[in-house]
Amino acid sequence: MSDALDRVQAAVAAREAAGLRRVLRPRAASDGVLDLASNDYLGLCHDPRVTAAAADAARRWGGGATGSRLVTGTTELHCDLEDELAAFCRAPAALVFSSGYLANVGVLTALGGPDVAIVSDAGNHASLIDGCRLSGSPTTVVGHRDVAAVDAALAARDTAYALVVTDAVFSVDGDLAPLAELHAVARSHGALLVVDEAHALGVIGPHGRGGVEAVGLADEPDVVRTLVLSKSLGAQGGAVLAVPEVIDLLVNTARPFIFDTGLAPAAAGAARAALGVLAAEPERVAAVRTNAAALAGVLRDLAVETIEPDAAVVPGFLGDPRRAFAAATGCLERGVRVGCFRPPSVPPGRSCLRLTARADLRSADLDRAAGVLAATLADVGVTG
Amino acid sequence: MSDALDRVQAAVAAREAAGLRRVLRPRAASDGVLDLASNDYLGLCHDPRVTAAAADAARRWGGGATGSRLVTGTTELHCDLEDELAAFCRAPAALVFSSGYLANVGVLTALGGPDVAIVSDAGNHASLIDGCRLSGSPTTVVGHRDVAAVDAALAARDTAYALVVTDAVFSVDGDLAPLAELHAVARSHGALLVVDEAHALGVIGPHGRGGVEAVGLADEPDVVRTLVLSKSLGAQGGAVLAVPEVIDLLVNTARPFIFDTGLAPAAAGAARAALGVLAAEPERVAAVRTNAAALAGVLRDLAVETIEPDAAVVPGFLGDPRRAFAAATGCLERGVRVGCFRPPSVPPGRSCLRLTARADLRSADLDRAAGVLAATLADVGVTG
Ligand SMILES: Cc1ncc(COP(=O)(O)O)c(C=O)c1O
Ligand SMILES: Cc1ncc(COP(=O)(O)O)c(C=O)c1O
Repeated sequence: MSDALDRVQAAVAAREAAGLRRVLRPRAASDGVLDLASNDYLGLCHDPRVTAAAADAARRWGGGATGSRLVTGTTELHCDLEDELAAFCRAPAALVFSSGYLANVGVLTALGGPDVAIVSDAGNHASLIDGCRLSGSPTTVVGHRDVAAVDAALAARDTAYALVVTDAVFSVDGDLAPLAELHAVARSHGALLVVDEAHALGVIGPHGRGGVEAVGLADEPDVVRTLVLSKSLGAQGGAVLAVPEVIDLLVNTARPFIFDTGLAPAAAGAARAALGVLAAEPERVAAVRTNAAALAGVLRDLAVETIEPDAAVVPGFLGDPRRAFAAATGCLERGVRVGCFRPPSVPPGRSCLRLTARADLRSADLDRAAGVLAATLADVGVTG
Repeated sequence: MSDALDRVQAAVAAREAAGLRRVLRPRAASDGVLDLASNDYLGLCHDPRVTAAAADAARRWGGGATGSRLVTGTTELHCDLEDELAAFCRAPAALVFSSGYLANVGVLTALGGPDVAIVSDAGNHASLIDGCRLSGSPTTVVGHRDVAAVDAALAARDTAYALVVTDAVFSVDGDLAPLAELHAVARSHGALLVVDEAHALGVIGPHGRGGVEAVGLADEPDVVRTLVLSKSLGAQGGAVLAVPEVIDLLVNTARPFIFDTGLAPAAAGAARAALGVLAAEPERVAAVRTNAAALAGVLRDLAVETIEPDAAVVPGFLGDPRRAFAAATGCLERGVRVGCFRPPSVPPGRSCLRLTARADLRSADLDRAAGVLAATLADVGVTG
């Protein structure tokens, strides 16, 4: 029997030796840095309408929800937010969670179980993976965007029931799931399709109603969506969109709903205001995608492998984790913040910069980004 | 192969038939109802200092944290909150999560694993249980507060490493864990002791520094604490208190930390302000415990089984779930909100009212509670 602290120290030392030790780098309120790393896709996090709504909600409803949703943590504010999310996304009903992470875990643990097979895309977000693990469902991980593999896994299952689980927009690679095809296959096997719209809400479809609505599946009773309030809506929290029976099941059995304090009023207020801006100013949705295409163009001009972005996420694949880290650090030193993803967040050899577009980037911002990326990538030996 | 929606409908119908279907009941901002159900133990959720700090933080730092803590979601505000939580609780270091739920899941998944046995109290909170399940650790659930059983489980383990996991104050029964004894046993086996201070922060010990500090264990490197910001601090969020190596491990490997958006600034600001009030007004800590004793007295006078409360939670055991539900509903109709816990949140036959004390209850509130409980319990046939 050994001391458990020794194990902790050894794990930390091993990461350090592998060049993978990460540290937190706090940012100041106004540091003049150009943000190409956040998920504030519509530029609403600092919108005065959004921050004023957060402040108003805190003053009116308090600093927190005071209890779990089934005890004291459901206010009229939460119900208004749920109604507005459902209306905007053309869903039958909505249920708000304290985070997108817990919404995903809640849905999969409530809908899954030993009698429910789950078929899950290899590129799915960590919260969906944790939900699969906690559900007790026999789970098959299929190749990224591989509809035929989903079909085969559903056909081969030995459970009565099944779920197909996918991100709508994958969080690091930025590509879209084949939602229409997945739904057709899921339906043919009596399976529910669970779609995480985290990076799709506010970005995909003409009005930003997300991936499911964009392909005409918003009315299908066998589609369950999860949303986050923490990205395009500039707040915090998550939500599930589904038919009322599914919402009822979640209220009664989803442990991360039942045993968690309700979302703080300020976050609910901020999300409501952001949703209002999104509905009133759909041009933001087009702008974020145009800016994403421009950022991809910058990377391509520098001969960095990227994608033709459908959403706001623009990866720049550099391969080596140390090089990716050096590039991200160099950009920050030059005043541009970009994301940097290394194993285990991405597969080995696929370390990348993760650039994100915002609706409020101006052409001067894009020029600045191009200059800083060119100088930094030359420095770290990627280009030049 | 069957339709997965049929399974959902059957599950909802089964709960309805068992009298266990729960529905959300939204509350208004000011409904005149006396709150004996929330976890706002110190009465700080609506304190103008707390709500003003939430509003200021939203205006200064935005409606959300904009990204995960390792990308854009760490602000100086988060670091200040971490420093202040560690200082107040006399801990070496702190790390803030977006909820207490995810803090618990994060700690257990990062510290656990197939080579780490977990010994967990049967009364532990759902988030600790989910953390045990996700960790992949071989887990032994021991009887409630049974130190000898913890000792035996640690001795019988066939892993190199081990964790002992307990709530400091149990969330429904309101009783205290034997922390000093658990620590002695854990240490003798080289195990870490993980203590969830959710219902202890602001309530236990002369200054409300929690259960671990109250028994003199704040300096022990083999004790890891989790906090919530959602109860006595009137906000939202969670935190881990531990030696820097443990914090480093969490930053690098805890999936619910790495892959989750940082806590919203308004919640961080509210929690900081609440911590300041708690430090400046320690008389609130004494008041909440005095009021809990008074509520227990009310129940005892009505011949309802309860406890001698050490914290703010005062259960009133009624046994039958329908009777407990009728009592809670009757109290609310008479203007007093109390919690109601039924299976599966509590064991069968242990359905109860859950009353919570607040520091700001006045004697008129206690009189009103006594009158309403007497009338309601007589109505539902418990007393009278
Ligand atoms: C695809 C996806 N789903 C879910 C989440 C979790 O949402 P939240 O951060 O609001 O908990 C994230 C990111 O944080 C994400 O990228
Ligand atoms: C003992 C205990 N731990 C953890 C939690 C989860 O904390 P949070 O609601 O902040 O997610 C709760 C209640 O919600 C609790 O009662």
